[in-house]
Amino acid sequence: MTASIAPAQQSLAELHAQIGQFYADHFYLLDSGRADEWAQTFTEDGEFWPPNRPEPLKGREVLTAGVRKAHAEYEEQDEQRRHWHGMVSVRPQDDGSLLVRCYAQILVTAKDGPTRLHLSCVCHDRFVWDEGQWRVQSRKVTRDDLR
Amino acid sequence: MTASIAPAQQSLAELHAQIGQFYADHFYLLDSGRADEWAQTFTEDGEFWPPNRPEPLKGREVLTAGVRKAHAEYEEQDEQRRHWHGMVSVRPQDDGSLLVRCYAQILVTAKDGPTRLHLSCVCHDRFVWDEGQWRVQSRKVTRDDLR
Amino acid sequence: MTASIAPAQQSLAELHAQIGQFYADHFYLLDSGRADEWAQTFTEDGEFWPPNRPEPLKGREVLTAGVRKAHAEYEEQDEQRRHWHGMVSVRPQDDGSLLVRCYAQILVTAKDGPTRLHLSCVCHDRFVWDEGQWRVQSRKVTRDDLR
Repeated sequence: MTASIAPAQQSLAELHAQIGQFYADHFYLLDSGRADEWAQTFTEDGEFWPPNRPEPLKGREVLTAGVRKAHAEYEEQDEQRRHWHGMVSVRPQDDGSLLVRCYAQILVTAKDGPTRLHLSCVCHDRFVWDEGQWRVQSRKVTRDDLR
Repeated sequence: MTASIAPAQQSLAELHAQIGQFYADHFYLLDSGRADEWAQTFTEDGEFWPPNRPEPLKGREVLTAGVRKAHAEYEEQDEQRRHWHGMVSVRPQDDGSLLVRCYAQILVTAKDGPTRLHLSCVCHDRFVWDEGQWRVQSRKVTRDDLR
Repeated sequence: MTASIAPAQQSLAELHAQIGQFYADHFYLLDSGRADEWAQTFTEDGEFWPPNRPEPLKGREVLTAGVRKAHAEYEEQDEQRRHWHGMVSVRPQDDGSLLVRCYAQILVTAKDGPTRLHLSCVCHDRFVWDEGQWRVQSRKVTRDDLR
């Protein structure tokens, strides 16, 4: 583990750059179907609460399996998905974690086909500094179409 | 009022993070219909020049009333709007203000319905440091469909 | 040429702000049809490998001519295009260059018409510090619909 820098000592600029880079890499892994590497960017006990689910998916194995299954379906349909997160607001907490809220677009492109804006979501993440990097400890996503 | 740091003394990194966070919070308030809080992120005499209007809306009361009316209509139609700003360019001015140009997407999602890309716009904001935070003193928005 | 600061000595925050601002200004020039100014943000020998081309466009003159031709067509069709880059990941290299990967949306708006999401792409840029600013030395873009 590399030296941990307490988030409270980091500037807003550093936090925004780190979380911006995190999202770019994290969703590139997801959209590339690299399920294992993606799951490593959650904490060991990380949880992901997808829209309209009664309870969260918990732990890297479950997260990996979920992505593998979903990605196989996208490949079956010959669709490329892109998770696009933006409008990021970072709030450092006293315990060193970060609460992050952002907007999310999910774009779906068929082979030779048009690109469509599939979903508009809001994502709430809790990041913790874990083994030398930021990881998601919990994620809750709400869909704008499901209310 | 907290101590003001002259923008000219701040790095581009700090300014980008501050304005990025501003837009994330500012439009989350707007999209949530929190008209009063949103209007507080303009200066007291702040003005907003919407597309195809002969003159700007001026002052927090007018801004608040405009958002209340619009949000009531969106609720009537059961639509969730998202204002998504990005491609942000920040130019600090000699007088301490910031001229910011960004692109804007407005997404509209019907209940149980699809999300559609409603508008593509360009936004020009002038920010001033006012009572301990950046606030919009003037905003001018142009729509790509109205030329 | 202004003093060059070796990228390795710059923080991730500075690099993210500089590249974010670069994209905002670079694509605003492109979307405004300012072909010459846009080409100046490439290196003299800069190359752009558009999707599904057997070889790249090389050098500022060729880049300028390509943009002029494309922009004339958009004006003919009375369309406003917006290149929207986001989800930026910056990796400083040992030689002082930056490898940047980002997602790209291309939005097209007809006069009085709707805005449509035309393309979803992934962009890989190599930036070098050249005559006092970052410039693109090579760009490769892949389209999600062409596989």
